[in-house]
Amino acid sequence: MNPVDLDKHPSFALLKELAQAPFNFASSRVVAADRIKKYVSSMAGFDLLYSTQRIDDDVLDALQALADECRVTEQFKTMKSGAVMNRIEGFDSENRQVLHTATRDVFSDSPAEPNAAGQAVKELQKLRLFLADLQSGAIVNKNGEAFTDMVQVGIGGSDLGPRALYHALSAFKISGRRVHFISNVDPDDAASVLKGLDLSRTLVNVVSKSGSTLETLTNEELVREAYKREGLEPQQHFVAVTGEGSPMDNPESYLRSFYMFDYIGGRYSATSMVGGVMLGFALGYQGVEDILRGAAEVDAAAEEKDIRKNIPLLMALLGVWNHNFLNCETVAVLPYSQGLIRFTAHLQQCDMESNGKSINRQGADLSYQSGPIVWGEPGTNGQHAFYQLIHQGTTVIPVEFIGFRKSQYDNDILIKETSSQEKLLANLLAQSLALATGQEHENPNKRFPGNRPNSVLMADRLTPGSMGALLALYEAKIAFQGFLWNINSFDQEGVQLGKKLANQLLDHFAARRKDNTYDGNVPDGSGWALLQASGALKR
Amino acid sequence: MNPVDLDKHPSFALLKELAQAPFNFASSRVVAADRIKKYVSSMAGFDLLYSTQRIDDDVLDALQALADECRVTEQFKTMKSGAVMNRIEGFDSENRQVLHTATRDVFSDSPAEPNAAGQAVKELQKLRLFLADLQSGAIVNKNGEAFTDMVQVGIGGSDLGPRALYHALSAFKISGRRVHFISNVDPDDAASVLKGLDLSRTLVNVVSKSGSTLETLTNEELVREAYKREGLEPQQHFVAVTGEGSPMDNPESYLRSFYMFDYIGGRYSATSMVGGVMLGFALGYQGVEDILRGAAEVDAAAEEKDIRKNIPLLMALLGVWNHNFLNCETVAVLPYSQGLIRFTAHLQQCDMESNGKSINRQGADLSYQSGPIVWGEPGTNGQHAFYQLIHQGTTVIPVEFIGFRKSQYDNDILIKETSSQEKLLANLLAQSLALATGQEHENPNKRFPGNRPNSVLMADRLTPGSMGALLALYEAKIAFQGFLWNINSFDQEGVQLGKKLANQLLDHFAARRKDNTYDGNVPDGSGWALLQASGALKR
Repeated sequence: MNPVDLDKHPSFALLKELAQAPFNFASSRVVAADRIKKYVSSMAGFDLLYSTQRIDDDVLDALQALADECRVTEQFKTMKSGAVMNRIEGFDSENRQVLHTATRDVFSDSPAEPNAAGQAVKELQKLRLFLADLQSGAIVNKNGEAFTDMVQVGIGGSDLGPRALYHALSAFKISGRRVHFISNVDPDDAASVLKGLDLSRTLVNVVSKSGSTLETLTNEELVREAYKREGLEPQQHFVAVTGEGSPMDNPESYLRSFYMFDYIGGRYSATSMVGGVMLGFALGYQGVEDILRGAAEVDAAAEEKDIRKNIPLLMALLGVWNHNFLNCETVAVLPYSQGLIRFTAHLQQCDMESNGKSINRQGADLSYQSGPIVWGEPGTNGQHAFYQLIHQGTTVIPVEFIGFRKSQYDNDILIKETSSQEKLLANLLAQSLALATGQEHENPNKRFPGNRPNSVLMADRLTPGSMGALLALYEAKIAFQGFLWNINSFDQEGVQLGKKLANQLLDHFAARRKDNTYDGNVPDGSGWALLQASGALKR
Repeated sequence: MNPVDLDKHPSFALLKELAQAPFNFASSRVVAADRIKKYVSSMAGFDLLYSTQRIDDDVLDALQALADECRVTEQFKTMKSGAVMNRIEGFDSENRQVLHTATRDVFSDSPAEPNAAGQAVKELQKLRLFLADLQSGAIVNKNGEAFTDMVQVGIGGSDLGPRALYHALSAFKISGRRVHFISNVDPDDAASVLKGLDLSRTLVNVVSKSGSTLETLTNEELVREAYKREGLEPQQHFVAVTGEGSPMDNPESYLRSFYMFDYIGGRYSATSMVGGVMLGFALGYQGVEDILRGAAEVDAAAEEKDIRKNIPLLMALLGVWNHNFLNCETVAVLPYSQGLIRFTAHLQQCDMESNGKSINRQGADLSYQSGPIVWGEPGTNGQHAFYQLIHQGTTVIPVEFIGFRKSQYDNDILIKETSSQEKLLANLLAQSLALATGQEHENPNKRFPGNRPNSVLMADRLTPGSMGALLALYEAKIAFQGFLWNINSFDQEGVQLGKKLANQLLDHFAARRKDNTYDGNVPDGSGWALLQASGALKR
């Protein structure tokens, strides 16, 4: 099957037409109760409430047609079964399978791609043994003490996803264990993390698929130096997550090596050992398994063709509706859960790096918008920050709310006859209604236009299982949107030019270190001129 | 002088015309060295490098004319001298002065508004005494021990700005002191912060201007309960920052009360006691004074009429150029400094709550876009995340880079003959060039369109002084843009509708707690229906 551009599907024109007069909340300023009840979709412990989107049955039917014409779920199955989908037809490209789903396809007797699932099982077994050794005291520091802390050194996919999950699940941590993260090549990042750590009781988990990421190698070296200064042997503290056979796959330097594989993109790697080793240290092996189970459940359920029964597919289509037909450039993801404080930052990578593309899978320029700008912070905090613009600004921002019925710690208080958790939920749902309906008023400053599309994704409680499911929901949504836009959601050529130019500038720095009279006089000169103008060459 | 809409200024039409053919980097794929040197502006320890914006001298001259026609710096001076600028003419509105600048107008013999400056001096004196008492041991806990930790309880402006500054300056902390923040009404926020704190050695700083913010009062009560459970007397630990005479201005409940005033908007309050008390605890009084000095220097320098010599004014105008003339909806603020990890979140509030408006200062609908969506994360982290879309996506995103020539900790390492700080700077400047120039390639996936406007704001080192200056630069930029758009940047009516609806939903929760048979049967019913559909009523 040849993938087809979004605007070549028969349903595209119909959707364009429907978008001329989308559902209008401003006429009644109310979301009718029967509408609310009708537009709810349930799957894998989550409910999606989407009555506050600018849709009706006609739009949903057209979106269903679009999904069918594009064969979105078939492409998803093809992906999971190991097809080489990370490619651009007819051009040099990564030419890889896309198998992050295999990292959690470890519970079934007939995994979609047995080879990758087998490798996942093997790494999980290694992890289980490692964690048991830490627990039993078989692995201890040179004073015979247990390790209390872990520093994860990684960047991008080796940082954002794992970090988001750690924050989300720290309520479930093994008592006395803590995790820290170093990612930025800014030396202050490592300095501020190392300050105050007892290195003798700290493991370091270095994560780089290639074993050659500039920031990670630099920070690893910086941390190794700190260990040596304290008379500690790094090999007894350092663990590696890397590709088999990479420069980091070396028992002389690392206590253990865990493997990741080139069929797992960095931004989709949180459920591989990239997240697994650190999360296992923090939560125990069972915590990792629960995350994987939650994700696996979604990966299976996301094959459903009926868009009203498939939450990630519905979210993908509603996103395309808002983005390509109602012309909204961004989407705000606003979790009403302090645990999800870094989840939007992870999604920024997962979504924008995947779908921030301008060519289709045949190398031709797109004639429509691909991935939106994703941003957001947790509510209720955001309500006291940027919600002013969402309600009354000149730009319409679709919102994806996320909420949970119960808190994680269950440490709550009744004030004015409601609990904090009820206040949190009341605010979440109130925002959803307020954005949709808006408000008339004789004072123009108290008018709210309404018709600001949004939906609410709701689960019972943020646990390892629901976190795994939430992660997989968004991964599936992003893949579905990539199929709809007919783009390769799995490469990232857009990061290369900056790298190339940075290396040119670094050559100037290095040359000047060797020779004080070096004047950087090269033909184009932009880089040197910018270095001079910035004052970066001051000593 | 009557404020005038952006599109009523004579220069508006000229700018529209110039925007038909903005400066094009794609013709040469190079930023010429003389262009780089020419477009640098310096002020208060900062340099703005803006050769990578899509401007030339004609555009700058037209922007200068716009600033002059709009009398932007005159309005700024009027604001600082205490005019009632927080208002909508002819309609009910807050009708307040806008005097956050007075909080740092404490070094001059002739402050712009002596009454407010006098109140600022008085609060600073109270702060100095309080900090000295903590230092000398005059204030200690019931066991005679010094306080080591402080928890700031606040939300919105009482949280984001102070938190951003604390992270930015933690390299300068008094040894052994730590600060924590509780903001979200999500009970898990307080629970996770309180877990593992030694409350007996912890101060709690409760910040609410009105003394009636739902989240803050709820969290304060939750924290007070925790103190009581441990047999500690809250009054010996709790400090208040609030309006004089508010319910929180009560010595029976608080060790000390510091005042904020209704002429300081929450999102502009970081340099008032809202940030001052916590920052004083963390950094010492001198740290606070250094922040204020940096901010005061900018407040004075921002009166300059020549846009080429006034960084915040130039940033404001370049922002308007990109937003209203080149039609970009968002702006990414990307600091190459891990210390600024929360600065963009603060700016999101400061900018989007200020300028996310749809009516002008006379109450009429705007016929042009006002404030953009502001978002971003620190580099180099972002390079491994969302930069793909910035480089190769279908949406153009103007970027404001921020960088520093030196690190904070000076704990660096040479790898491949360059330091981490040099790697950081090389990456920052390389991104600026790459976004502007783009790249041609025979492989369409390696093509970069370029012409992605950006500028680089650079200072020597992130210190209390430069942090204060950076904060004031952005505050001035935001005010200038508000003047240009002829909007009231100082109110936030857009948060009210959500609050109102949330209270309606809370009434349902409370009623059902009292009466299990309560069925929420009210005329519109949306709220109750949504509560039911969400499962939030499950017990």
